[in-house]
Amino acid sequence: MKKTLLLSLLTAGMGFSALAQEVIDAEAVKKIREEGLNHSQVMKTAFYLTDVAGPRLSGSPGLKKAQNWAANELKSYGLVNAKLEPWGKFGKGWQVNKNYAAITVPYYHAIIAIPKAWTSSTKGAIKGDVTLLKVDTVTDLQKYKGQLAGKIVIIDNNAPALVRSKNPDLSRYTDEELAKMAAATPQPAGGARGGQRGGGNPQMATFMAARAKAAAMRGAISAFFQQENVALILSQGRGTDGTVFTTNGASYADTAKAALPELETSGEDFLRIVRLLRAGQKVSMEADVQTQFYNDDLQGYNVVAEIAGTDKKLKDQVVMLGGHFDSWHAGTGATDNAAGSAVMMEAMRILKTIGFKPKRTIRIALWSSEEQGLFGSRGYVAAHFGKKDSLKAEQAKVSAYYNLDNGTGKIRGVYQQGNAGVGPIFQSWLEPFKDLGATTVTIGNTGGTDHQSFDAVNIPGFQFIQDGMDYNTRTHHSNQDTYDRLVEDDLKQAATIVASFVYHTSQRAEMLPRKEAPKAGTN
Amino acid sequence: MKKTLLLSLLTAGMGFSALAQEVIDAEAVKKIREEGLNHSQVMKTAFYLTDVAGPRLSGSPGLKKAQNWAANELKSYGLVNAKLEPWGKFGKGWQVNKNYAAITVPYYHAIIAIPKAWTSSTKGAIKGDVTLLKVDTVTDLQKYKGQLAGKIVIIDNNAPALVRSKNPDLSRYTDEELAKMAAATPQPAGGARGGQRGGGNPQMATFMAARAKAAAMRGAISAFFQQENVALILSQGRGTDGTVFTTNGASYADTAKAALPELETSGEDFLRIVRLLRAGQKVSMEADVQTQFYNDDLQGYNVVAEIAGTDKKLKDQVVMLGGHFDSWHAGTGATDNAAGSAVMMEAMRILKTIGFKPKRTIRIALWSSEEQGLFGSRGYVAAHFGKKDSLKAEQAKVSAYYNLDNGTGKIRGVYQQGNAGVGPIFQSWLEPFKDLGATTVTIGNTGGTDHQSFDAVNIPGFQFIQDGMDYNTRTHHSNQDTYDRLVEDDLKQAATIVASFVYHTSQRAEMLPRKEAPKAGTN
Repeated sequence: MKKTLLLSLLTAGMGFSALAQEVIDAEAVKKIREEGLNHSQVMKTAFYLTDVAGPRLSGSPGLKKAQNWAANELKSYGLVNAKLEPWGKFGKGWQVNKNYAAITVPYYHAIIAIPKAWTSSTKGAIKGDVTLLKVDTVTDLQKYKGQLAGKIVIIDNNAPALVRSKNPDLSRYTDEELAKMAAATPQPAGGARGGQRGGGNPQMATFMAARAKAAAMRGAISAFFQQENVALILSQGRGTDGTVFTTNGASYADTAKAALPELETSGEDFLRIVRLLRAGQKVSMEADVQTQFYNDDLQGYNVVAEIAGTDKKLKDQVVMLGGHFDSWHAGTGATDNAAGSAVMMEAMRILKTIGFKPKRTIRIALWSSEEQGLFGSRGYVAAHFGKKDSLKAEQAKVSAYYNLDNGTGKIRGVYQQGNAGVGPIFQSWLEPFKDLGATTVTIGNTGGTDHQSFDAVNIPGFQFIQDGMDYNTRTHHSNQDTYDRLVEDDLKQAATIVASFVYHTSQRAEMLPRKEAPKAGTN
Repeated sequence: MKKTLLLSLLTAGMGFSALAQEVIDAEAVKKIREEGLNHSQVMKTAFYLTDVAGPRLSGSPGLKKAQNWAANELKSYGLVNAKLEPWGKFGKGWQVNKNYAAITVPYYHAIIAIPKAWTSSTKGAIKGDVTLLKVDTVTDLQKYKGQLAGKIVIIDNNAPALVRSKNPDLSRYTDEELAKMAAATPQPAGGARGGQRGGGNPQMATFMAARAKAAAMRGAISAFFQQENVALILSQGRGTDGTVFTTNGASYADTAKAALPELETSGEDFLRIVRLLRAGQKVSMEADVQTQFYNDDLQGYNVVAEIAGTDKKLKDQVVMLGGHFDSWHAGTGATDNAAGSAVMMEAMRILKTIGFKPKRTIRIALWSSEEQGLFGSRGYVAAHFGKKDSLKAEQAKVSAYYNLDNGTGKIRGVYQQGNAGVGPIFQSWLEPFKDLGATTVTIGNTGGTDHQSFDAVNIPGFQFIQDGMDYNTRTHHSNQDTYDRLVEDDLKQAATIVASFVYHTSQRAEMLPRKEAPKAGTN
């Protein structure tokens, strides 16, 4: 066998003793590596998705601009059927048009603060005193009746001093951590999402109750502030050193009432103001926060494009790859998830550039509204593959969906997502990339992103294991999620490995095994 | 001896075998520890110096306000002769009254950027395109003649991607590092400043020449930009993740010409703009930077106050302690050097509170314009103690000057600053604080702050060894040098130890030995 390499799969750490052999196309791997590692375009793609496009919040004009760019770019690679495909109704678009805030008393200091997504504007450039409120119950609000008009308000969150990490921001998996993942045993039934969300955990009920209470109070507080004509709300953003993690502060539903302007304020600036107010010092501010809503198109879209299959019997079968394309608004969503989007686009470019004519059709999908609840991928899956209890015929034709959405870190392996049958296959497919640090196959699940939409309808959906880097410490939903965090060598490595996985999935004699089948054989 | 403890000083790691014994007043140490560790006011003091006072740039109204507060606070402790004492001419005061800048094309994004100290204002709120200049030599400027009016300009600094640290931000000395410091041998003649500044190093000449060339070009660039009516300059600030280290961008001399407005821009925001411009993308900005100069009082001041000596023979002798009180403008100078200032004020408060009547006079001095060249302490030393070759009589009456200016980290020991004779004395004085982590006496020098002004006229001047914490990684001259970085337990520990050192210096039979005397005995 000239062009292929047979790998024995008696690999240590696998939970069964199959003697399966998996075909690796060594010549294709060589070409993929050459194109992916030595002629990469991934950083150019990432540059357009971040620096040029800017934030890609769901429904925003920025997202639409980036989606159009990506569809055209995929066309330019020679892909077919490149388009923006609607997945259903999302809601209002929103973007920031001006963001300025400073304290002016006891001295001037411009603060680092980000408007919460889908909150509204200040009434032009405003000036006002800052009032610290103690609100433990809804009735506490009445103390402030008639006192808050035109004020900038802070609810005292009893925040202690900032806690700063003693660990480095950047991290990669150690050999020990990877070995532990490789040695993991299958997780109990309930599947990925049950496991992730902790259903049945008695502490969870308490937590959910507390959260519900806080949410109920938030509604009452919000209504009171509106009624009292509060000018601006400051809340504390997570993060230190100028890094601010952001969220939404209001609903994106087209029927939702406008919420007051609210700034998620850097820990340092927030606590400085709180300390001054607690000590009885007067604090005044000026601010000009202008946001804009878009109601012209409430639809959500995914970007999809294909390399058509060429094998008469297999071309109706599909291998999918993707990642979410939408981001939060404070940075440019570089690690979350321009990284994954650029890697998946680059994998397609690599396969096209090496002249690959796949047996099965290869389809890339760049989802939107992942950040609001995996809406883009869920909508796509429902439309094409149906629901768990009412599957469509196409569901049977998808061999696998590969996802990338854990930041800029290189691929260290892949989660089987509880699918025992793919273990030996993935182990052999990783073999040619051991020198690039990708070695680990774990039976374990990972959650929180779009492969779950596929897993939910029993289409094999996988997320790769990626080095953490500074995803949790600095970039995930923060104002620091910018191009600077992207690690070129890691993205090249990831695109190369994904391209090879997709290649082999499209050429494999059989589709990938699904979860039910191999259950009997596992421990 | 009821109230004292005799300590043998055959301590390991000292460079000689003196059999000296040093008196420790255990009863006083107990009281100092009780007041310093259990009734501390140091965080309250630090709060006023940072959050309430704001930035304390040399010559600024903020500095004057904080100096007046400190003088009054020291009076309230019961100190005498508390005053602002002029040390000579400084120059113009300056402060920021408004600081806003954002990119508006290709999309809106408010940037994190700090006006360089002593630069001027934009002409109101401005809008303009950003131009990237390639300027390797002064003649390169001519390419841009007639093209820069109203532009926001960036000189391409050929900056590569941001380099992010793999180490934690926070650090403390390890036992090994301290042991190495303790084992250090005396440094060659030339003294602290010669050693610090690297006189005679052949590489230094090259470095200084390159720096001189760059400085010469800066002058020409600045003149060209003014002539061309540039609206605003952006330069790259050191730092990552929203942290921006700041400097001055113009002279504070009252005769200096106004410099154009210039923003030291966060690495992420600067590089985003540079990448866009390098790729041929249009970038537009809006900005409103308003700074204000003060010429009403060009004088510089130190804050001084005393606990008068009570011993007839010794009260004319003086023990001094201090640290610089001025800061940079982007943060509130918490670790540089509200920390040292608050600790020294607290040490005085502790000594007053325990009812201490010192033999020698104790004098605190909080310097200004340290950041511009140790001007406050140099001016004070020149006025009171003379110059190296023309010493005044008072020079002979200062037993020691203790300085604190290396951030919020606790005291781990003390630098002898090349003074072998104080080694055994300091070793014994640290003995009661071993449990607090202060153990190390090193013959070594440290530079860069105000004890050098004393050392320069052969008055024993010392800086304590302090844990580094995040001084170099986050706070030193940055926008993140705020109250949040102050570590309460560390400041309490430092104030307690300084109070004890000052106590024992004031009560010791002899003044501390000076450098000349013990030279013969050292290796």
